[in-house]
Amino acid sequence: MRVLARDIVKAAGEQNGAEVEVKGWVHRIRDMGGVSFVILRDRSGIVQLVLAEKPDLSLESVIVARGIPALNDKAPGGAEIQVNSLECISRADGELPYQVNADIGKIGIEAILDNRSLSLRNPKIQAIFKVQATIIEAFSAYLRSQDFTEIRTSKLVGSGTEGGTNLFEVEYFDRKVYLAQSPQLYKQIMVASGLERVFEIASAYRAEKHDTPRHLNEYVSLDVEMGFIESEKDLIELEKNLLAHIFTETARKNARELAMWGASVPDAEAVFKAPTLGYEDALKTANAELAAGGKKQASARIFDITPEAERLLCEWAGREHGIELVFVNEFPRRYRPFYTYPLDATRTMSFDALFRGLEITSGSRRQHDYQSFLETLPKFGLKPEYMAGYLTVFKYGCPPHGGFAIGCERLTQKILGLANVKEASLFPRDRKRVEP
Amino acid sequence: MRVLARDIVKAAGEQNGAEVEVKGWVHRIRDMGGVSFVILRDRSGIVQLVLAEKPDLSLESVIVARGIPALNDKAPGGAEIQVNSLECISRADGELPYQVNADIGKIGIEAILDNRSLSLRNPKIQAIFKVQATIIEAFSAYLRSQDFTEIRTSKLVGSGTEGGTNLFEVEYFDRKVYLAQSPQLYKQIMVASGLERVFEIASAYRAEKHDTPRHLNEYVSLDVEMGFIESEKDLIELEKNLLAHIFTETARKNARELAMWGASVPDAEAVFKAPTLGYEDALKTANAELAAGGKKQASARIFDITPEAERLLCEWAGREHGIELVFVNEFPRRYRPFYTYPLDATRTMSFDALFRGLEITSGSRRQHDYQSFLETLPKFGLKPEYMAGYLTVFKYGCPPHGGFAIGCERLTQKILGLANVKEASLFPRDRKRVEP
Repeated sequence: MRVLARDIVKAAGEQNGAEVEVKGWVHRIRDMGGVSFVILRDRSGIVQLVLAEKPDLSLESVIVARGIPALNDKAPGGAEIQVNSLECISRADGELPYQVNADIGKIGIEAILDNRSLSLRNPKIQAIFKVQATIIEAFSAYLRSQDFTEIRTSKLVGSGTEGGTNLFEVEYFDRKVYLAQSPQLYKQIMVASGLERVFEIASAYRAEKHDTPRHLNEYVSLDVEMGFIESEKDLIELEKNLLAHIFTETARKNARELAMWGASVPDAEAVFKAPTLGYEDALKTANAELAAGGKKQASARIFDITPEAERLLCEWAGREHGIELVFVNEFPRRYRPFYTYPLDATRTMSFDALFRGLEITSGSRRQHDYQSFLETLPKFGLKPEYMAGYLTVFKYGCPPHGGFAIGCERLTQKILGLANVKEASLFPRDRKRVEP
Repeated sequence: MRVLARDIVKAAGEQNGAEVEVKGWVHRIRDMGGVSFVILRDRSGIVQLVLAEKPDLSLESVIVARGIPALNDKAPGGAEIQVNSLECISRADGELPYQVNADIGKIGIEAILDNRSLSLRNPKIQAIFKVQATIIEAFSAYLRSQDFTEIRTSKLVGSGTEGGTNLFEVEYFDRKVYLAQSPQLYKQIMVASGLERVFEIASAYRAEKHDTPRHLNEYVSLDVEMGFIESEKDLIELEKNLLAHIFTETARKNARELAMWGASVPDAEAVFKAPTLGYEDALKTANAELAAGGKKQASARIFDITPEAERLLCEWAGREHGIELVFVNEFPRRYRPFYTYPLDATRTMSFDALFRGLEITSGSRRQHDYQSFLETLPKFGLKPEYMAGYLTVFKYGCPPHGGFAIGCERLTQKILGLANVKEASLFPRDRKRVEP
């Protein structure tokens, strides 16, 4: 009967002398002369195997070993297995092109991504995706508890929702379509369909040419849309609850993974204390931080919520409110898409969430009034006659509503303190990379 | 305080005479002279509003009403609201291009899909997607309980996994890539990475030109991959557990939606009694059914697991084993992709699951031995040098493993008894349809 690495201490503690079977990968081999140690890695962690003689094994081979578990303070995890028999069921080529058990701090991101099928075997790299799985599970679970319905919408669209730029073109039989930049229209249709509250977790695509540590051309968007709201403040409240649940679940399920990265998540209580600043106040606060910071800062003055401003605002919130999370709302009309609901002549019912120096969310209440759309569209250079499909939703009864999207990789990145968002994507796509 | 339609009976039963507020869409209006009834629809169901005079309302408008709830056996759901005040918050154009409250049995699928943003408001159509949300939730929950990790992989790939046909081409900056037909390679990388057990729920793409009631060009694939298996029989066992859990959860959460369609799900116990037939036995059984069925059948003889054979095998299983679910395994080599693990010289460790007359799953143990790949590939006309990226996974230690995929829309279709799989896709894509 197979026992997982994480259960060896328990098996050894039971001390009934019964043999156990372990299966996994050869993570490390140490030959000490009279005795050899093999560190076996399985989905739950690592365990030390003790062998009387040096085994004929290559690193990363898959083995099955049987032996007697024994407690040993010096062994990783506090127990080891005195091996009686060992079988290699998949022999790895001895010349590894990438050293799986190396300290990844010493390996550059290009090498990690170029050797993705091997680098993903490293426990610290794998930890990223165990945390990401928890984020997705906690996001879904919280929304279901609030009566949200999960939806799956098409990623092949006739036109873009944010205008015609940054779209990837797809040859679709005898016509061209595009990869969806967001499920915006579909979320709105589903709110108006009467489901009222929907979420979707799916790929989104941006054909942006720049290559930065904060951008991916294909990313996982955690999308939410909700009917019968008053303003973006209802959405900020919902996102606080969501983040609090995600952080709590990550702390509960991924203590080991967080420890590998020397990372921690904010307390749920701290999340509810995160400040909300209007756009103008946010600029003032960022500029005050800039002035106080002296020479360390890059800019002389900040005129927009730039990456530098995001960093400064989170520093400020960390110091003043005990959490590096800030909501900025009431963005000026000119910075927001046509479907954003107005607050007044110049401002909108919109918001961003900034976490540990990075924008992780953009959201807003949406325009839902058909007549207002007809008046607004020309100001954005859009023609109602080309948007009949979209406008149908609003012509036939649509409640006030809004929503937001959390970038899954960005949230993962910031929870673990990763330098580059690409580290938080299993198979990242950028301008040069479409393999593996 | 808003009360949902499903809670009005409870509110009325409490009989404290307090006013409640309801919000939703005008589903139906009946003017009876001295009194008018408005059926309000919200995310939880419908409720009858009673008004002293005929309201100035159009169907599908969004309203907020306040009034006193009262039990009434004649009202849908057993209660109604005596309205004190009513406000229209989004007026629907009076000329609906599609009748939302009509019996959908009388509307053709083309009209339903052409008017998707309105047809999705129909409670019976919406029920399809409430069931689908349960399928996705139950699939994930069961696999997590078995230590599977959810993954999200790229849908933009350099080449196809099933060969170069039926791929949609994407303009990716200055090169061409393809929409993934399945996450096959990525699931295998993640098993070999040491996660061992993974699942993914995501879009998959097939550029098939034919337009049938069983095909979609974009569908949601419920993908599973698992390490350290002996044969496809372990996978059949896993799928039985999965289906049993999905059916149990659907019965528990979606009794109302199943009733709308006159549908029911098999008992969990029945699922475990579903038969497995080897490919040759399956053909014999299908032909015996064909012979027994007389003139009703289309073919004189069946030589392959055709759609007709799928139907006959499910009829047979329903009669002989009490459930219209059959697993067919040991498919001949020639019918399966190159990565399928051989059982012997002619047969493979592969299987299909057929449910209520339709293939819903294809799966297999996979080849994991590097040397065997090098020998096998040329027989399939494939060149190892072009597949170096894929082969890396097996060159450096890979356990025996396998997996399968359940077509989410097909399972939804068969649970509810829908005539066409497109009915089970929110925004289906076919050769002609990419809107909305």
